[in-house]
Amino acid sequence: MNALSDLQATLDPSRKSWIESANDSTHDFSIQNLPFGIFSDKTNTARRVGVAIGDEIVDLSVLKSAGLLKLPGASAGQLIAMKDRAFEQDTLNDFISLGRDAWRSVRIQLSDLLKRDTATLRDNADLRSTALVRQADAQLHLPVQIPGYTDFYSSKEHATNVGSMFRDPKNALLPNWSEMPIGYNGRASSVVVSGTPVRRPNGQLKLPDQERPVFGACRKLDIELETGFVIGSGNILGEPIACADAEAHIFGMVLLNDWSARDIQQWEYVPLGPFNSKGFATTISPWIVTLDALEPFRVEQPTQAPQPLAYLRHDGKHAFDISLEVTLRPQTARQATTISRTNFKHMYWTMAQQLAHHTVSGCNTRVGDLMGSGTISGPTADSCGSLLESTWNGKNPLELKEGGTRGFIEDGDELTLTGWCQGDGYRVGFGTCVGEILPAQK
Amino acid sequence: MNALSDLQATLDPSRKSWIESANDSTHDFSIQNLPFGIFSDKTNTARRVGVAIGDEIVDLSVLKSAGLLKLPGASAGQLIAMKDRAFEQDTLNDFISLGRDAWRSVRIQLSDLLKRDTATLRDNADLRSTALVRQADAQLHLPVQIPGYTDFYSSKEHATNVGSMFRDPKNALLPNWSEMPIGYNGRASSVVVSGTPVRRPNGQLKLPDQERPVFGACRKLDIELETGFVIGSGNILGEPIACADAEAHIFGMVLLNDWSARDIQQWEYVPLGPFNSKGFATTISPWIVTLDALEPFRVEQPTQAPQPLAYLRHDGKHAFDISLEVTLRPQTARQATTISRTNFKHMYWTMAQQLAHHTVSGCNTRVGDLMGSGTISGPTADSCGSLLESTWNGKNPLELKEGGTRGFIEDGDELTLTGWCQGDGYRVGFGTCVGEILPAQK
Repeated sequence: MNALSDLQATLDPSRKSWIESANDSTHDFSIQNLPFGIFSDKTNTARRVGVAIGDEIVDLSVLKSAGLLKLPGASAGQLIAMKDRAFEQDTLNDFISLGRDAWRSVRIQLSDLLKRDTATLRDNADLRSTALVRQADAQLHLPVQIPGYTDFYSSKEHATNVGSMFRDPKNALLPNWSEMPIGYNGRASSVVVSGTPVRRPNGQLKLPDQERPVFGACRKLDIELETGFVIGSGNILGEPIACADAEAHIFGMVLLNDWSARDIQQWEYVPLGPFNSKGFATTISPWIVTLDALEPFRVEQPTQAPQPLAYLRHDGKHAFDISLEVTLRPQTARQATTISRTNFKHMYWTMAQQLAHHTVSGCNTRVGDLMGSGTISGPTADSCGSLLESTWNGKNPLELKEGGTRGFIEDGDELTLTGWCQGDGYRVGFGTCVGEILPAQK
Repeated sequence: MNALSDLQATLDPSRKSWIESANDSTHDFSIQNLPFGIFSDKTNTARRVGVAIGDEIVDLSVLKSAGLLKLPGASAGQLIAMKDRAFEQDTLNDFISLGRDAWRSVRIQLSDLLKRDTATLRDNADLRSTALVRQADAQLHLPVQIPGYTDFYSSKEHATNVGSMFRDPKNALLPNWSEMPIGYNGRASSVVVSGTPVRRPNGQLKLPDQERPVFGACRKLDIELETGFVIGSGNILGEPIACADAEAHIFGMVLLNDWSARDIQQWEYVPLGPFNSKGFATTISPWIVTLDALEPFRVEQPTQAPQPLAYLRHDGKHAFDISLEVTLRPQTARQATTISRTNFKHMYWTMAQQLAHHTVSGCNTRVGDLMGSGTISGPTADSCGSLLESTWNGKNPLELKEGGTRGFIEDGDELTLTGWCQGDGYRVGFGTCVGEILPAQK
């Protein structure tokens, strides 16, 4: 077990790294962060586990081989073998499967190794040359193999906006919405890592002036600004996760863009929910920020009225203060325009409540499962997490700094999500979650 | 490549096996069938690939080691290694990944080896004693690792019944239903093999006399009689599968019981579809019947009006004549009561259309993906695929031969799905898909 004081020390705002780029107060990858991902580079094309710090990636497979990283907990044969190779895998699943003590311990060891006054790696030029890879020279891959992807719908502002637009402005919020974190199963196969181009989907569109649908390219392509959390330890079928225990099952968080074809969605979604309108792509950021690193940024969740049923209650602070932004850059433009600024702390339902609800039926979860927050919208037009909302279904196009106006996304547009927690003199950031839109297949 | 005449020979109704139990005209596992599954037994607890014939399982790992099975197609190093071990795996995924030529070739070789006048295995008592395992002595496991589970809603009778009950009897069928095979993403983690007990789920129930929902055990637990198909070769993200090509991507079919908590469903499903009401368990039969074995049972699909959009059109026969039955046996009863008799051929949308629609957005599929047909209901009350329909939401309980009446499923009830194609003197059957209901967790 890790001492709580060791964990606390990794969160000390005054801790600095000998990797100087990490010490910039606006750099996403401070020594307080240490997010996990999967990378490769030109000199070593094998995918392996890395941790981002400043402009560098620390190659954990190299540190392990050099004897500088220990994984806690002795165990049976198979687990030992898994442990020995956990950093040489092309996904984080094996590492995550080792359990929370292991994640925590590795993060603590890395923080110690990378802090300014620890000479071990700092002063070993040979080891440094193989253990550090510049992010600019690396390719980042999908960090986890995702057995299941679930998407929630937990922003009250978003649900209200959508309900007003497509159902009834007077009863925008359906009665079940305030009683449970509404969610649905998404398509795990098409979750891609940031940087993967996204092809505009074809599908059935129901045009207002025609009796029957037509087949064609989506005309209302949209983003959904979300975060996602990754399951660190699952539950057995038939054995729910209690709300109070739920956060211990979460490995960490990513940014998530739940690309949405609004015209396909509007025609297909009744009565079984969105399908082709969402299944063509979901982009996540490559670095998983651990819940440990987010600990200092806990805040009170919004007041929930009515009080949730007992299985959805938890004491304490379970929201997180994560600033979020979306930019759009047309293919021909040099400058991107910020089209949304909001914060994760606005979410009505917490991650703990989402996970408790998901499993209360007995549904099992597995290491690597991805759970999307749902679109994160704030109370104003410039804090909406989708163009559907900010342009009110295209009626009020956004003025870009460069490249005209946008009701929805055009081919060649590059959409970028960013997110960060601002500490005192340091940031715990998520990097970027980027996707450029390719024209639909003819 | 396999000669078409070799494939045809495996379907010859007059072919008989030296395994005499297979020659009974009502036995599911004739020599014309040869479905694939994963099994283990007491003397060898390792999971491995088997094929059912009569009352026996042929252990393909033993036949391969004995040099009696060849897998076609030379290839690169990794694939050769995969081929050599394909029958020693705990799922069929590696075998299926070898491609349609390989599945076909193995089925043809097995048919030749097991036919009455082939002496090779028949007269080799030593080899027979290890290559054949009695089904009664074996344990059957989930046949595939399922990366994604999708469930469709393709029975017109079922959609009409549900629409009448919960929406508007005059406009029971929503306008999109006749234009596309409506589907949604299900929860893959809780797909279990036949025989796995199913725990009654807890969840939110909205009782008519109360303003707010209560938490408790589902009171309207139901089956959904479905078939499922398993993807044999997937598609790359962004590259749809054409309707005409779709069947070549299907490895085979299973029976599928999409357990449903109707009270949870009714309260949660708007606007994003069913979630906890379905995610607690889905049961499939253990033997995957190949599309090759089903070839003689192709029939014309129902006429589709309006004519589907071009991407959903196919020529020829794409429905299959599969008789289906559901029985219910209360815990205290010796006798089961047949509660539904219907046929897969009634389905409005074909499997090919479902797969073409699923991927037309560019959504990728992967080997082992499971696609449920949706509840299969015929035109009469005794041909409904759910109790919701046959009892009209519990209002007209069914009279059991033994054990009282049923509006919905009670604790201890055992539900069994069966399905078969009746040939001339032989059957191509699916075995059983069974689940017994355990009381809800307190």
